Parts: sequence; C-alpha cells; structure tokens
Amino acid sequence: MNIQQIQLAHGGGGQLTAELLFEVILPSLSVGGASIQRVDALCDAAVLAEQSGRIAFTTDSYVVQPLEFPGGDIGKLAVCGTINDLAVSGARPLALSLSLVLEEGLARPLLQRVLESAGRSAGQAGVDIVTGDTKVVERGGVAGMILNTAGIGVLDEKTQLDFGRIAEGDEIVLSGPLGEHGLAVMSQREGLSFSSELESDCAGIHELTGSLLEQLPMGVHFMRDPTRGGLAATLVELAEAGGCDVEIAESAIPVNKTARAAAEMLGLDLLTVANEGKLEAVVQAGAGEKAVEVLSTHAIATRSAVIGRCGPRSDTPLVEMVTTVGGRRVIQKPYGEELPRIC
Amino acid sequence: MNIQQIQLAHGGGGQLTAELLFEVILPSLSVGGASIQRVDALCDAAVLAEQSGRIAFTTDSYVVQPLEFPGGDIGKLAVCGTINDLAVSGARPLALSLSLVLEEGLARPLLQRVLESAGRSAGQAGVDIVTGDTKVVERGGVAGMILNTAGIGVLDEKTQLDFGRIAEGDEIVLSGPLGEHGLAVMSQREGLSFSSELESDCAGIHELTGSLLEQLPMGVHFMRDPTRGGLAATLVELAEAGGCDVEIAESAIPVNKTARAAAEMLGLDLLTVANEGKLEAVVQAGAGEKAVEVLSTHAIATRSAVIGRCGPRSDTPLVEMVTTVGGRRVIQKPYGEELPRIC
Repeated sequence: MNIQQIQLAHGGGGQLTAELLFEVILPSLSVGGASIQRVDALCDAAVLAEQSGRIAFTTDSYVVQPLEFPGGDIGKLAVCGTINDLAVSGARPLALSLSLVLEEGLARPLLQRVLESAGRSAGQAGVDIVTGDTKVVERGGVAGMILNTAGIGVLDEKTQLDFGRIAEGDEIVLSGPLGEHGLAVMSQREGLSFSSELESDCAGIHELTGSLLEQLPMGVHFMRDPTRGGLAATLVELAEAGGCDVEIAESAIPVNKTARAAAEMLGLDLLTVANEGKLEAVVQAGAGEKAVEVLSTHAIATRSAVIGRCGPRSDTPLVEMVTTVGGRRVIQKPYGEELPRIC
Repeated sequence: MNIQQIQLAHGGGGQLTAELLFEVILPSLSVGGASIQRVDALCDAAVLAEQSGRIAFTTDSYVVQPLEFPGGDIGKLAVCGTINDLAVSGARPLALSLSLVLEEGLARPLLQRVLESAGRSAGQAGVDIVTGDTKVVERGGVAGMILNTAGIGVLDEKTQLDFGRIAEGDEIVLSGPLGEHGLAVMSQREGLSFSSELESDCAGIHELTGSLLEQLPMGVHFMRDPTRGGLAATLVELAEAGGCDVEIAESAIPVNKTARAAAEMLGLDLLTVANEGKLEAVVQAGAGEKAVEVLSTHAIATRSAVIGRCGPRSDTPLVEMVTTVGGRRVIQKPYGEELPRIC
C-alpha cells in the first residue's frame, strides 16, 4: 500500500493506522534524526529509564497558518516550542510526545516535510520523541493539521528559578532581535514582498538556558520565552508576579531593520509580536554583562543584550520603557489577539 | 468582564487569555475537584517534586463528536483516556497536561461543563492537572473544541510488563462488557432510539490495574485498554508482538443486550468497537480466576471474565474465536475506520 494522501480510515486504529505509522510517520521522524523506538509505537505509554531530579512537564498545541513559513513549519515549531518551555523552567529537556490531528485529504509530501522537520529539531536537541497519537478528521475539520507536543525534562538539584527570587536591581537580558516569528508568518500569510527577507527565529533555546545555568548557577533568578503576547506580555507578567516595577530601554532592545519595517507596515508593535527562539532571563544585579557574554557564544544569541532592570517593590507594578528620544512609555500586556494562529 | 462565548482574542496570550484562564478554565477544573496550582498557570512548565522510579509518558488528542454523549463528554474522555494509557503501562498516574483548541463562538456553558467534567475525573483519580495551553481558531476551524491530554506516571520497581513476558498458557482477562463507548457515541450521533439506554463506559481503570499489580505482582504479564479498533485490534497486536497464537471464547465475552442490539442495527462488530473504561490483562497460566476475583471487587469491573488464552509460539500468530455455536473464526485487526471521531 502506497499512501498518497490521508484518509479518514488512517485514524481508525486498525491496519491502515499501523501502515500510516510505520510507512510515513516513524520513518519521517527518523529521517530528521529523531530517535524513535519502533516497538514502543504499539504500547499505550512510553516507559523511560529512572530519572533523578525534579520533573518539569509542559504542553502546547499548535495551530499556525500557513503550515510552512520562512524559517520553519508547524513541526519545527511544535518541537522547539515545547523544548523551550522546558528550558526556561530550568530543566534539561528529556522526552517529547507528538500528537497529530490530520485533515482528510492532507497530502503525504506535506505531512512528511513537517514530520522530518519535527524529527530534525528533536534530533538536533538530543531529545527523543517517545510517544504519540494520530487522529484524522473529515475534510474541513481542521486546516491541514493541528499538532500537540508535551514534554518532560529534569531539573538539576541546584536549579532554583522562581518569581520569588526576582529582586530590585536584577537585570533583564534578551537573547536577540524581536518579533521575527510573528512577522514572518504574517508576511507569508499576507503575501507581503519583504517576506523573503524575514525568517522566523524558531529555534531551540535549551543550549542558551543550559549555559546560563552552568555559568551563573545562582545568578539566574527567572527565565521566560516571549512567545504569544511577545516581550510585552512576559515583562508585565514578570513585574506582576515578581511584585516590582520594571524599566527597559528601547535603545537597548535588539531589532532587525526588516522586522521594524514589516511591523510598521502591518501596524504592529514589535514588543507584542511572538518570538519562538528567544530567551528572556532575569539575572542578579551586576550579572547582566556576564550573561550576555555567555549567551553570545551561541550562534542564535550573538546579539544578546541587557535591555532593562527590575526596580523597587511595588503593590501596583508597572513596566516602563525609556524611549530612544528619552520619553517614558508604559508597556501594557496586549489586550487580545493581534495575530491569530501564529503558533 | 463577563465571558459569554469564546472570541479569537481569547487565544492571543494577552489580558483576555488571562481572563479566560482565571475566570473560566481554572475555576471550572477546580469545581470538578481537580487540584490546580494558580501560580503555575503563568509559568511555561510545571515543576513536580522529585520522583523515584521509572517514568511513563503518554498522550492522546480527542476529536469526538458530539462533544457530549450519554455517559460522558470530551473532557471526561480526555482525562480518563490518558490515565488509562498510563495505568495499563503499569504506572501510577501522577500528573496530566490539558491543552485546548477552541472554536471562536464556543458557548461558555458548554466549555464549563466539559472542563468541570475533566476536573471531576482527574479529582476522582487523584491526579493533578498541572500544565496546559489554550488556543482559539476561527469559526469552522475546529468543531467546537479539540482537546489533548498528556500524562506522566511512575512505575514501581517490581513492575515488569512487556510483550516479551507473554507465554503459552497465559490467560486473557477482560474487565467487562464490550463496545459501549463507541455505540453510545454513534447512537447519539445517529439519533437512534435506544441511545437513552446505552451509556459510554468511559472511566479511569487505574484502580483496576493498581489492584492487579498489587495482588498478582509477578502474575501480570501485559495490559492494554481496548480503545480504537476495539478488542480485535489489541488482541491481534498482542498475538503479533507476543509471537503466539491467541484463542478466545465468544461465550465468555461479556456483552450487554442493548449493546448487542445497537451493534446489529449499526452493522458493527462489537469486537472492533471502541471501549474507554475496560482493561484487557494477560496473566500467567492459572492466574485468570484470581485476576477476575481481584477485578470484580471494583464497581466498574463486576463482570470481569477470563475470555481466552495464549497458544503456542508461532511465526504467523493468529487470533481465533471459538463461536457460541462451536465454530472457529479468525479475528482480524479492523482495516480502516468503522467509526470516525469516536475518541
């Protein structure tokens, strides 16, 4: 049997489901370099070797449209997104699940490209995809596919990241230019001419977080990755949960020229646009430059910068940005959805 | 702000997403009895206390239509389904993730009912929902909602379940009547008159597996739950992976009269219809009756029975059923999809 496109019957749990799994899904993930255990594919759960340490656990569903965009696709996004959520919690990513909801009629080549990309991202990160699920819904039931990844990771005994550790004077470090994921997807969707120059920053940031925790074991107080809602949302959450004001300097925030132009054309604020390969770290006072030095040794973080610092404790914490012309602007969490189906 | 129905903006990662989370999602899960940690809701991953033992990890996405059906709904199904996949791997379920993909326009009361039901199922099982995600897609992008749960569990040191432990003479135990989940959903969908008498068997089977492993620590060789593809699919996989023939007795298989009638009317083979609260256990020769005795102490398994046994090693393993009239029928894995969107 040579599968050309997905049929409803591929989701029935019978022979055709097994064919899809062994002919398309597992080989595609493997081509990418992910370690897949064939036998486990038939079991209801994967069983991992005993781990010592606290376990981090996270999940995200991915509904991005289009499924492929400059710099990535839904498969790469699903793997990197969950790896990153583990990484910023201070964990070493260990294993992923991958769950597919496929639309009847989906073309095999597209599915293969997405899965190879997912497998490649997992393989590059040294993270196994150990368990999964495949459902098929009728034509129009989803737009091509929806993916879900969950992930587990292990925390070192000494790693202590917590809103409660955020203190006055802490410095805020960002690992590179803002907004390129959201803008690449939007530009592709809108058919804008600069889309060829804009690429999603989609990448695993586990090596960044690993290096920071290794080089500044007690100096890292908290980490996030500014995805949906962008830097603005995570800074406001940081201020609120940490209970302190936050001040950032517009001139210190790395931005690429094309991204700035695209944001202006689309009427978007770069601070609220989603990133998928950026780290935002809160480090102790005085440790910002060291953090930048550590991060900058990684190819995806050569433009790391200290972009701000935490101010005094406050019952009504505010995030303010000192603008390039010396004004002050209050940064708010975006209200709703500027960019639907961006991740 | 009083949320009446889901808007695209609720998925943006901004203020409205936080409102949906704190006004609807977390309270509904809590009403049901699930333990929810409010602070963690803003973190990228949940961090669990250190565990000792091997970790089981599994995931499933749920696309069932209709979202509510006799005996359950997509929320209960999503929680029980993942708990059960952990349970049959021999693990004690520890924590779940819950990821929502919601359709723009989804009514709040329906979302609340589903989440309360999910929370209730988790609470009853003593399993925490520790991490999650919410996306919203445009009207028509999904049919109401798609859920995903992933789960992690811990295995006792002595638990050893493996296809490789399946041996000639092993007995196959089923914890109750077949096919009621699939038939309840289909009857509801088709508006059939007996739908009021048919209820999904959707339930957590972790107490069944826990009791069996406790009472027969070395006597349990393998466990599955016969969901999509039904008993037929799991028996064939068992035979193929275990490398032995399997024989079951039709007269020994528990079936309810209404389910039999519904299957006949719908032209379905009960052996291939999905269950969502049944355990299929392979126990060592002679231990079948003891297993039935242990299982029967649980309200959801009072009709447990030994339904067959494993035969000799074979390079071409077959599953055969001795029919009620004394004939022999080869049981095959269903080919494709008899019942779309059943789970």
